[in-house]
Amino acid sequence: MRNIKLLIEYDGSKYFGWQKQPNAITIQEVVVKAIEELTKEKIELIGSSRTDSGVHAKGFIANFKTNTKIPAEKYREAINVKLPDDIIILKSEEVQEEFHARYFAKGKTYSYTIYNDDVSLAIGRQYALHRKDRLNIDDMKDACKYIIGKHDFECFKSVGGSAKTSVRTISELYIETYDKYIKIYITGDGFLYNMVRIIVGTLLDVGRGKIAPKQIRDIIDSKDRTKAGICVPARGLVLEKVYY
Amino acid sequence: MRNIKLLIEYDGSKYFGWQKQPNAITIQEVVVKAIEELTKEKIELIGSSRTDSGVHAKGFIANFKTNTKIPAEKYREAINVKLPDDIIILKSEEVQEEFHARYFAKGKTYSYTIYNDDVSLAIGRQYALHRKDRLNIDDMKDACKYIIGKHDFECFKSVGGSAKTSVRTISELYIETYDKYIKIYITGDGFLYNMVRIIVGTLLDVGRGKIAPKQIRDIIDSKDRTKAGICVPARGLVLEKVYY
Repeated sequence: MRNIKLLIEYDGSKYFGWQKQPNAITIQEVVVKAIEELTKEKIELIGSSRTDSGVHAKGFIANFKTNTKIPAEKYREAINVKLPDDIIILKSEEVQEEFHARYFAKGKTYSYTIYNDDVSLAIGRQYALHRKDRLNIDDMKDACKYIIGKHDFECFKSVGGSAKTSVRTISELYIETYDKYIKIYITGDGFLYNMVRIIVGTLLDVGRGKIAPKQIRDIIDSKDRTKAGICVPARGLVLEKVYY
Repeated sequence: MRNIKLLIEYDGSKYFGWQKQPNAITIQEVVVKAIEELTKEKIELIGSSRTDSGVHAKGFIANFKTNTKIPAEKYREAINVKLPDDIIILKSEEVQEEFHARYFAKGKTYSYTIYNDDVSLAIGRQYALHRKDRLNIDDMKDACKYIIGKHDFECFKSVGGSAKTSVRTISELYIETYDKYIKIYITGDGFLYNMVRIIVGTLLDVGRGKIAPKQIRDIIDSKDRTKAGICVPARGLVLEKVYY
């Protein structure tokens, strides 16, 4: 059978995450339905991650096996015409038979967007967290240095999830600002349940002076979830890229 | 009575424009309801323009008269708590009794955003028109020069609207590009029905080589709507600013 790899962008606002589940609409389910309509086969669609309810993606990767003879790059348009406008296949290509979107993933980059102003925003509110606090960006940037590296990130993990170990390597974590926006980029070999959103919540506590940048090391060492910041809402989170 | 001026941002995606109308939800109606709940008065809310169905605004201006004693700058938050998250009052202030959001308007700036790539986008699709054509931006910029100035813009007007004359002055019209986005800004003393969207449609025809830049002058002189481009969809259009 042929193995087709898909690069997918989606606006997760109205979906209950990627993973198929009963009684809730998910991205996986919508994409599977579109592919099955096209191929007339029962297909299994493997996703690179289980993004949570409301999380977006610009670079989600999935793969499926098929016996259809459609040229690989043509799946893109053929599937897109069957998808709603908040899910788009950006690219389709044939890959080696062993390729598995989840098991082969070596790392991921996420971004999180904060809109930092007295008043919230209407245009683009689906893609940013509004915060009124005057945030000290230099302190937030400073705090990033303590998170980068290989650590036991138990403190940045919500209850749940199926990870065997909470040791992960964060290879990159940086902050960009433009206009009233603050954008945090984080790259790692893997992420624990809600890890990115808790790291962002912790960086926001640093920004508003509740946590000093150098305290981050103690928080990580404590392995105590209650010492870290809140898990910020899903809407600002985008899966930017998956590395293989 | 006190005269309160509001600066409003809204995502027009799900509204049938600004102006109140039977059997369709409009922005004016939603804002009026929020103010009336707050003031317990019957109020008349005057808007700077009648934006069409699906058009957005970052700088819409409206005003209303009231006998309430709330400090002017406090209306902002007091109204915002009663509004849905796609409409936000950015600023409230007291102005002279004669101020009228429509009659006093001296000019407006609109922007129109095009996403120019082979594949469409999911994130932010509500705020941009997707076009696949390879567009010649230099030609589009060149064409702008022929539109700037005081002209009879009959050719860029849809049937309907109540304007007595089709002579308008376009003081500024320019194009910015970033990533795969093309953003057109246009400022004028007033705009005819669908005028901005037809000018954008015409500039797109220039971009794809259907109309030469210098032909724009002939199109304007012809006063013939059929010689201009299509009226592009509302979603890319944002009322950026109103001048007084």
